[in-house]
This record gives sequence, C-alpha cells and structure tokens, in this order.
Amino acid sequence: MAPGDSEVDVLIVGAGPAGLMAATWMARCGIKTRIIDKRGTKIFSGQADGLQCRTLEIFDSFGFADRVWKESNHMLEICLWNPDSEGRIRRSDRIPDTIPFISRFQQVVLHQGRIERFFLDSMKKHSDIRVERGVMPQSMTFDENKAEDPAAYPIEVTLQHLTEAEMNPDQSTSTNGAAKSDGLFRSNMAADDTEELLQRAANHGLVGSRETVKAKYLIGCDGAHSWVRRQLGQGFELEGEQTDYIWGVLDIIPITDFPDIRMRCAIHSASSGSVMVIPRENKLVRLYIQMTTTEKGGDKLDRSNITPKLILESAQRTMKPYKLDYEYCDWWTAYQIGQRVGKSFSKSTRIFLAGDAVHTHSPKAGQGMNVSMQDTYNLGWKIAGVINGTLDRKVLGTYESERKMIAEQLIEFDHKFSRLFSGRPAKDVADEAGISMSEFKEAFVKGNLFASGVAVDYDASLIVAKDGGPKEQSDGTGVLNGDKRGRGAGNKELATNIKIGQRFPSYQVLNQADARPWPFQQFLKSDGRFRIIVFAGNIVSPSQKSLVHQLAKSLEPLTKRYTPSSKPIDSRIEILTLHSSKRHDVEIFDFPELLRPWTEGEGWDYWKIFVDDESYHEGDGRAYEGYGVDKEKGCLVAARPDGYVGWVGGLEDVGDLERWFGGFMKVQE
Amino acid sequence: MAPGDSEVDVLIVGAGPAGLMAATWMARCGIKTRIIDKRGTKIFSGQADGLQCRTLEIFDSFGFADRVWKESNHMLEICLWNPDSEGRIRRSDRIPDTIPFISRFQQVVLHQGRIERFFLDSMKKHSDIRVERGVMPQSMTFDENKAEDPAAYPIEVTLQHLTEAEMNPDQSTSTNGAAKSDGLFRSNMAADDTEELLQRAANHGLVGSRETVKAKYLIGCDGAHSWVRRQLGQGFELEGEQTDYIWGVLDIIPITDFPDIRMRCAIHSASSGSVMVIPRENKLVRLYIQMTTTEKGGDKLDRSNITPKLILESAQRTMKPYKLDYEYCDWWTAYQIGQRVGKSFSKSTRIFLAGDAVHTHSPKAGQGMNVSMQDTYNLGWKIAGVINGTLDRKVLGTYESERKMIAEQLIEFDHKFSRLFSGRPAKDVADEAGISMSEFKEAFVKGNLFASGVAVDYDASLIVAKDGGPKEQSDGTGVLNGDKRGRGAGNKELATNIKIGQRFPSYQVLNQADARPWPFQQFLKSDGRFRIIVFAGNIVSPSQKSLVHQLAKSLEPLTKRYTPSSKPIDSRIEILTLHSSKRHDVEIFDFPELLRPWTEGEGWDYWKIFVDDESYHEGDGRAYEGYGVDKEKGCLVAARPDGYVGWVGGLEDVGDLERWFGGFMKVQE
Repeated sequence: MAPGDSEVDVLIVGAGPAGLMAATWMARCGIKTRIIDKRGTKIFSGQADGLQCRTLEIFDSFGFADRVWKESNHMLEICLWNPDSEGRIRRSDRIPDTIPFISRFQQVVLHQGRIERFFLDSMKKHSDIRVERGVMPQSMTFDENKAEDPAAYPIEVTLQHLTEAEMNPDQSTSTNGAAKSDGLFRSNMAADDTEELLQRAANHGLVGSRETVKAKYLIGCDGAHSWVRRQLGQGFELEGEQTDYIWGVLDIIPITDFPDIRMRCAIHSASSGSVMVIPRENKLVRLYIQMTTTEKGGDKLDRSNITPKLILESAQRTMKPYKLDYEYCDWWTAYQIGQRVGKSFSKSTRIFLAGDAVHTHSPKAGQGMNVSMQDTYNLGWKIAGVINGTLDRKVLGTYESERKMIAEQLIEFDHKFSRLFSGRPAKDVADEAGISMSEFKEAFVKGNLFASGVAVDYDASLIVAKDGGPKEQSDGTGVLNGDKRGRGAGNKELATNIKIGQRFPSYQVLNQADARPWPFQQFLKSDGRFRIIVFAGNIVSPSQKSLVHQLAKSLEPLTKRYTPSSKPIDSRIEILTLHSSKRHDVEIFDFPELLRPWTEGEGWDYWKIFVDDESYHEGDGRAYEGYGVDKEKGCLVAARPDGYVGWVGGLEDVGDLERWFGGFMKVQE
Repeated sequence: MAPGDSEVDVLIVGAGPAGLMAATWMARCGIKTRIIDKRGTKIFSGQADGLQCRTLEIFDSFGFADRVWKESNHMLEICLWNPDSEGRIRRSDRIPDTIPFISRFQQVVLHQGRIERFFLDSMKKHSDIRVERGVMPQSMTFDENKAEDPAAYPIEVTLQHLTEAEMNPDQSTSTNGAAKSDGLFRSNMAADDTEELLQRAANHGLVGSRETVKAKYLIGCDGAHSWVRRQLGQGFELEGEQTDYIWGVLDIIPITDFPDIRMRCAIHSASSGSVMVIPRENKLVRLYIQMTTTEKGGDKLDRSNITPKLILESAQRTMKPYKLDYEYCDWWTAYQIGQRVGKSFSKSTRIFLAGDAVHTHSPKAGQGMNVSMQDTYNLGWKIAGVINGTLDRKVLGTYESERKMIAEQLIEFDHKFSRLFSGRPAKDVADEAGISMSEFKEAFVKGNLFASGVAVDYDASLIVAKDGGPKEQSDGTGVLNGDKRGRGAGNKELATNIKIGQRFPSYQVLNQADARPWPFQQFLKSDGRFRIIVFAGNIVSPSQKSLVHQLAKSLEPLTKRYTPSSKPIDSRIEILTLHSSKRHDVEIFDFPELLRPWTEGEGWDYWKIFVDDESYHEGDGRAYEGYGVDKEKGCLVAARPDGYVGWVGGLEDVGDLERWFGGFMKVQE
C-alpha cells in the first residue's frame, strides 16, 4: 500500500436509509466497513416517512422496532373522499390501512431523520462503524480480473474530505415566511450538486484532504443522482419515463375543520385536483397536493414558481368547502412523477447499487424508503457471509435476481397508482377520460398488500428451494444450480402457510422453560445466522419423540460441517424448536441436547425450545394452525439470515436439507 | 440568607428508588428540587428486583415502562415444589404468577440499577434536577411555628460534601473467588456506616465542603438506617420485631438439571430448608436460600460466617437430588427476617419519611422497592401541588393516612408469608409444628393479588369521596372534611368496576380521530393534572348528546375556576371523553368544544375523545362493559394526578363534583 492508502472490506457510499441498513448488517456481522456521505449532518425533518409493516419486522430483527412503534404515528384507516353528484367532496369509503393479521405490526409514519438516528444508535452499540460525513468519492477504479479472488481488493476509490461550508450547502430562503428551509433542495426537481461540490473542493482542497481506499466490495446507496452508478457507465442507466404530474408536499400542523385530518385520506375533487393526507407524529400532517393536471409532454415547472403558499392554495381548492390553513410548517417540497429502474444492479458482484440509485418513483405510496432499505437488507448478509467465509460468492448473484424483480413490481405499482391518483374523477360511466372511483378503490385495496411489504416473494434460486428455473426469474441471471432434486427441494406441502421465498410469518408461541409468550418471528434475529426451525410436532407421542431424537443425530453433523470447530455449535446455523404438545406435559429435557445446547459455565440453553400452547395473559395456542403444519408430525423449515424461507421439508428430509445448504455454504474446519 | 446558603422548595435525602420517584414528580411538575445521596455511584447489580404490575403502570404514566418491559425477565408461572411421601421434592402445583387480566402488565424482574437509570434519564429529559452524589446531611433544624406559612422555608439542613474515598466505601474481598464484591455491605446485617462516614468527613473536610440549605419540604428516603428519621427522634421509631430466620441470596447463572429453574419456584424440602427461585434478566437466576431453621431468640449470625459457598451448599441440600452449581455469581448477600413500621410518617406535613425509612421487611415477596416507590408516588404530586399553589396544604395529611395503612398491610403480608416460607413442611395433618402445604399455596394465591399492587384501596378522605369517616382510616388523622354530602360523594353505583380509592383501571379504547387502539390508562399521564373522565354514553342519541353539551356548559366554569387564566384550559384539570356509539357514526365535531379544545396555531385537539369500539387489528370494544358503565347514560369520573379514583357520579352531578374539588383545590386568578 502507498502511504495514505487504507484497506476495507466494504465501502458504502451514502448514509441514507439504504446505506445505513447495509452498514447495520456489517456492524452485526463484524465486517470491516466504512460508510461515507457528502452531507454534513443527517436530516432532521421531511423526506420519506411511511414504514411498511415488513420494514418494522426487519427493524425488530435488529432490535429497534419498539423505538419506531413508540414515536411514530400509527395509521389505521384510509378514508376515500370523492365528489358527490353536486361536486361537493364527501367520504365515500373507509378501508383498513394495514390488512388485518398479515403482520404483527401496522404501517406507521415517522420521519426519516429518526429512522436514521435508530440505525446510528444500533451501529454504535454493536460496532465501531461510524458514518463519515463530508466525505465524497472523487474517482474509482475496478480491476475486474481480480473479481473472483477472495483475498483481493479489486476496487480503489479516492475520497475527498469536504470543508464545513462545502458539506452544508446553502438553502435559499423561501418566499413564504412559514417554511424554514427551501424544501426543494432535495427534491427530484432540484439540480444535482455533486459536480459542483467536487469542483469547489478541488479549488480549495486542504493538504491531506484526499485519501485512497482499497475495498473488497462497494455499495452505492447514493441516491437518484448516484455517483457510483455514473462511474459504472454503460449498462447501468435508469430506464423509464418522467411524467408531467407535479405534486407539492407540505408538512404542517393543520388548522382545519376537515373531519378526517388524522386519517390517511385520498381526496379527489371534481375538477380541482387531488390531495393525499398522511397524519404524522408530533401533531404534523403531511399533505401531498396535486399542482397541475397538464397532460404529458410539457416542460418542467420552473422551481422558482413553487412556494408553500401556492401549494396550500391548491390544497384549499381541492378540500373546499372545508377550511385548511397553518401557522407551523415543518418542511415542504415539490416533485415530478416518474418511474425508472436501473438496467443492472451490480458489476461483477463486487460493486452494487441499491435504493434510489436503481429505482425512482413518486413518494405518495410511501414505498421508497422501505424498498431501498430492503434492497440492502437483502444484500448485506450475503456480502458479510462471503467475506467471513461462510457463503460461496455465487450467492451474491441473487441480489440482482431478487431485488430487480421487486423494483420492477414497485415501478408498475407506482405507475398505476399515480395515474389513478393524478387523474380527474369520472363524472359518470361514459366519461372515459376520467378515473373510475371504484377502480381507484380496488387499486387501493390491492395495493395495500403490496405496500405492506410482506408479499415479497423471491423466485427460485440456489438459496430458494422452490419450483422454477432461471427463466422464471425476473432477469434470467441463472443463479440456480442444477435440477430441482439436486438442490434439495424438500416438501413445501408440509407447511401450507410458510411460503418458500417469502418471509417466515409470525404466530405467538410460549417459551417451554418459562411460559413467556412471544411472537415467534422475534427469534429470527438479524445476526447473520441461518436458522433451522424444527416443528417437532406432538413430542409426547413416543414414536414422534424418537423421530425427533433421530433428527438431532442427523442434524448434528450438518451444523458441525458449516461451523468452525472453535465456535459454539449455534454460531452459523441456529436450531429453534416449536412443539405442539401441552406445555405442562413436557420439559426441555425431553428434547435432544442439540436442541438446547450446553455451554461451559452457563449450563443449558433455555431460549431455543418453544411450545404452541395458550398463555395465561395473552391467549392463543394456534401457531401450528397458523403455519399450516400438522400438529402430530411437524416439519422442518430453513430460514435465511434475512428471515426469508429457503427450504421446507419433513423431519426425515435432512439429506435434502444438506443438499440445499451444500449448494451455497462453505464447509468449515 | 447567609453567604453559602441556598433555598430550595424540596430537598430529598437518598437517591434510591423512593427518592428518585419523588424527584421524578418534581421534575414533571417544575418544582425547584435537590436530591442528595451519600454514595458515589448508583448501584450496578443485586438489590431489589421484583416489579409489580402496578409499578409498571406507574412507570408507564411517566413514559418509561417500555424500557423495563423490554429488558426485564417476565415471570409467568409459579411452581410449588414439595417433598413427596419418600421425602423427595417434586412439583406439586403451578399457578399463574400475575393474576390474569388485573393489569395490562405482568410482574417482571429487573435489577434496581437499571430502574434507577430509567428514573435518571427521565429526570434529565424533563428538568435540570440531577442527583448530587457524595453529599450527606450533617445537621438539621426545623421551625415548627412556620409550618403553615406557605412562603416559609422552615427546614434548614447542613450538607457535607464527601471525598471520593469516603463516598465509595471499601468492599472486603469475599472468601469465595466467584463473588465480585462483599454482598453483605448493603445487607440489613451490615452495620450502618453513616456515623463513620460523617466522622471521616469531619476529620479531613476540605474548605467549602459544607453548605446550608433552606427547604420548604424535606423527604427522607434514606433507607432502614434513615438519618432523617433519627433527627426526628421520639415518635418516629420503627416498631416491630426481628426474627431469627437467616436467608442467603445468590444472583448466579445456574448450572443445573432442575427443570423449573426459569420459573418462579417455592421449594420446600422435607428437612433441609427452603429455596425460592426468581429467574432474572441476562440468564441470571436469583436464589433465596434458607440458612438456618433455628427458632426465635438466637443471636445474629456472625457475618464472617456467611459466604457464597455456604449459601450454595444450603441450596444444594434443599434441591437434591437435582444438581446446582455456578461459575458466574453476579451478587450475593444475606439478611435476617424482620418486619417493622414507623410510628409516624411525617412531621407537621413538612418533613416526610418514605420507603425503607418507615417500613422494613424481608425481600422475598418482591414488594420492598415497589411499596417504597409507591410511597413517594403518593406523596410527590401532593407536595408539588401545594408548592405551585394548586392544592390546599390539608392534602398533605393524606400521605400518612394512605401510606401507613399500606405499610401495615405489607408487614402483615410479609409476616405471614415469611413464616410459611421459612417453616418445615408438615409431614401429615397431625404434624402441627410443620407448615401445611395447602395453606402455603392458598397464601401464595391470595398474596398474589396483594403483590400485584393493584389492590391498593385508599380510605375515605378529602380527596377520596367514598363512604367512611376518619375512624375507618388506618391512623385516624381525620383529614376528612365534613359529612358525606358536603364533600361531594357522587354516585359510585354508576361505574361498578371503577372503585373509588383504587387506581383507574385500563381497557382498550380507540381514538375517535384516528382509530388507533390504546389502553385508556395510557392517557392518565403523571404530569400533575387531575382528570375528569366523561363517559359520554351513546352520543348518537339526541337526548344524550344534549346532556353532554349541557355537561360541558357546567364543566367549563369548574375547570376555569382552578386554572390560572394565563394557562391553557387543560393545564390543571384535563377532560378525557369516552363514548359508546359506533366510531363511524360520530365525528369529534359532534362533541362540545370544551372536550376537544382549540389552540391558537394548532387548531383542534385530536387526542381527547375516545370511543369504545372494535379495532381493525386488536379486537375489543368492551371498555364500557369492563368499567361497568351504562352504555346509554355513561357517567363522570374524577382521577387524582396519581391515577387513583377520587370521585364517581352522573353526568348531571357536576355540582357534587365541584364540591369535591372545592374541598382541596385553590381557586385561581
């Protein structure tokens, strides 16, 4: 290494939600990582805010969903407001905002700055990784020949450290006294300032303000104007179209007589545009307000034309005869609707793009931050597993095959949703230029499942043992290895509600050792470990008990094969057991040792065996029913470190399970 | 004032849980307060750990129950182990640890150091009150003639600032390598070190290390050896008896094959003493271990005789044939059982004693920390209300009348419980010296209600409008003012499950404005405000609606009378409304303005009107049923700032309610 150079396993560019999620994985898995951001501070208000229930499940797997749950505003009901026959808006429908019982969480709203805070606190607790602010990449080289060499650092990036003034760009004063800052400065209608920042830094660069970093992996989470994406050049462009629908956004404490201001509302006026109401924390309400209904083909609105006053007046027109005003505005912006997806998500599975760098769309559906974080939630454990020698590099190919499909689904959803939302309501069935309100409602209801995030269903691959070959995958990258039998397909019929490719769902179970009720999903922590879930069935039956003891004998060599001999037996693959007998009829000592491992100095492990039985205070005892598993015979499930189900089979299918693990895991010494 | 003197509204001596609870009230109510402790640090392990569900409700009213709930170990089941006919211990019974449905929380275990941390964080968030460590009182004077002068500072205390060495006393090394510190140093068998500390401080007192503080009120939360109590002298002695039962305590990570080690267990061996098992956080288990069965009258055991090894061996004898050992011991101690209560709890309602300073007992029942905190939870808002001019000084008399009764109940409970627990099990019905195991179980079940803390039932007084005169009060202090009618007795029949004198119970309700489900108790925050809860009944009925509008007209002058005109209308008395119509049939604008007050700049208040209806995701709609209130007619309830019910009446009984408030509240300008 030249003087001033340094090496790092993973370099993350951009410390928004996608970058922080990636860094959080690295923090949990002990990977040497740097994360840089050109801005001087994290954001404090505005920006993205909607959180899917799946995102909350993910936060919970890192241990901080409770902070979000406590601080956020919970959205329970969507009210649809449409013009009546006289053209006056009235509430035409109510639907639950989160489909009941698809998750143990419901969709909530909390501004991005708090989410970033929780990530930062979590990283600090588990690692010495810190966001380096005011640092931006200046040039990059990549030696493709070294891509498959595990010891190599094929990526070299020159970093520029910015001065205080450079990292905190001026925000022009708004023309309306109420807004504290120019909301447009991070809008998609604002010009990219990267080149300008670099130029300024070059002009007054201080001594020692540049350094060179060699990295094994690079993750570009640097937004819609992604610098990393531009370095990759051809083959990495965003594809899609920009529309001419302009929307304004106001975060205000509303002063109004509109009765549903604390509900999520979709308001279509007869001919004065649409408004979406998103009630938020701290008495705030976010209003998405349609600014123009001009059809395709017009020029971009001049940004100097848009002011909070103009946006408010649009909202007032839509919501009349109800009154709407404010004294306090927390944030505002405006954006132009468009949907675009990146052509490729990775270069030689060494350089990855995630979040807004590979998909942009309109914010109203509350999906952006969620899908972005879930990109790196999908990617992080894979990179960490390859670096720490657990996983084969082939696994990295599944990032693009899994996430590009989701990005495309998102774009399609948003395209449809935006069109319905930005259109004028149909006057009657003959009014073909107008939007049918029943179609709108249907789209809303259907969109709600997508928008929950729990419907994500990854295609067949070497880590998803389900039917289908490379062609059924969204991009045909062909990460599937061999035939169905060869990759250990198991038997999905044994757990009818545990879908291979989807996240492991949650039902309440009790800890056998202390009778405490827990959502079972709570134990699928994001710590880099795979998990085998033994649905042990009715362990009181002698034949079933003997089957479970037999199972442990065959699972032991499997777990040992992939676990370094110096480490505890559950450090790479953790086994969790859920049985269906009555809790009072069973003790943990009825189970084989492997399912409640012994540790020198601490004795038996009391946190691995659970029972599907009723609790004293919180009911239930219907987990087997919920999971769709036979209460007598049980089954075997394998979950990936991100909680997605990779394999389902019977208690006697360990051979099959071994083949599945063998397809992507590295044998340890 | 002399130079070096200072004035403070409240001086709290002792920063254990009772002192911190008092300081937390002062922090919330904006009272000028100092809190001192002779120790150099808060404690980090051991000590009290059991938390009643009522204590969690109280923590929740201050906003930090969630932190306890997350970190603590939850105890769900009690297992009773007794000798069988061969003398071998076996599990004879299981009972739920917290009686189902008496609270939205269950009893949990978390060590005192964490609880203190949560108090400290909460105080920091809401005030500039900080614990001053290494500071102890040295002398005190009290001018009784000024007791009734609201402007006076009748208490003067000289404070001694200790040096580092003085505030962190040596802990002798234990004879067993595993224990990190001498667990006895805070045992009730350790000698009091107050005099010694003072002597040492006097010997090398630095210049400026002493100061004089004048205080309006003084709260002594300084433990069983209370310095404050000793200054008060005659009439303040602890009364009761010390027994000869010696118990050892070990906090260990147990290595054992005992199957119920993660349950709360009461183990009676045939002739080798008893053990109580309390599973804790971080894999720890606390064992209470009987060291001797000597009957009354012996001398105190020499403390040098007690070692962790000796305690462990006792446990091993009781629990055989099961194995028990440990490598890690977090803390240990030993104590002698005794039950004592202070004669008086206050001097001229200016100087108060709380916690261990007025009641000591054995720790096994997990009550000590709870009752101590609840002492100052009862006292804090009363002192704060008198200081800020809201309450008449008479209210302060209810501290002793309310809490001495509880202390006596605690002592009685502990006396009975300890005797049953320390005795040898009866061999058969003819064995009269032995303890009947069925009697033990019965006491356990019965004790569980007491131990939950929710059964606390304060007697009639000027702030508790129920039947009964001074004679029915535990100490006959006679704080009751006048006859039943005169103090506004209302009509308790209108809410059969809201008991006057008990805490306002919790059922799930929905916010009318946003449909979010909440436990209703959650809105009874500990912020110093009284609350009127309007059970508005079926607001869709025109006659009921008109009754509610009529009610608001008569409530408005009442709330204004006790609220300074410069303050928001809800700053002294907050009105919360719960109606029983269908949520979809009602809007907040159906209710009078007083129930959803308008604020300049923020519009209407959306967090005051609730509905008893089913939620989308969490069921229910049975709050009226739970509270025992008529769904058509509703009723009116007044809750004290500590969440205890003071008055119940009908919607037309505002005159009665006014008389009740008039008995203790001060009219404002």
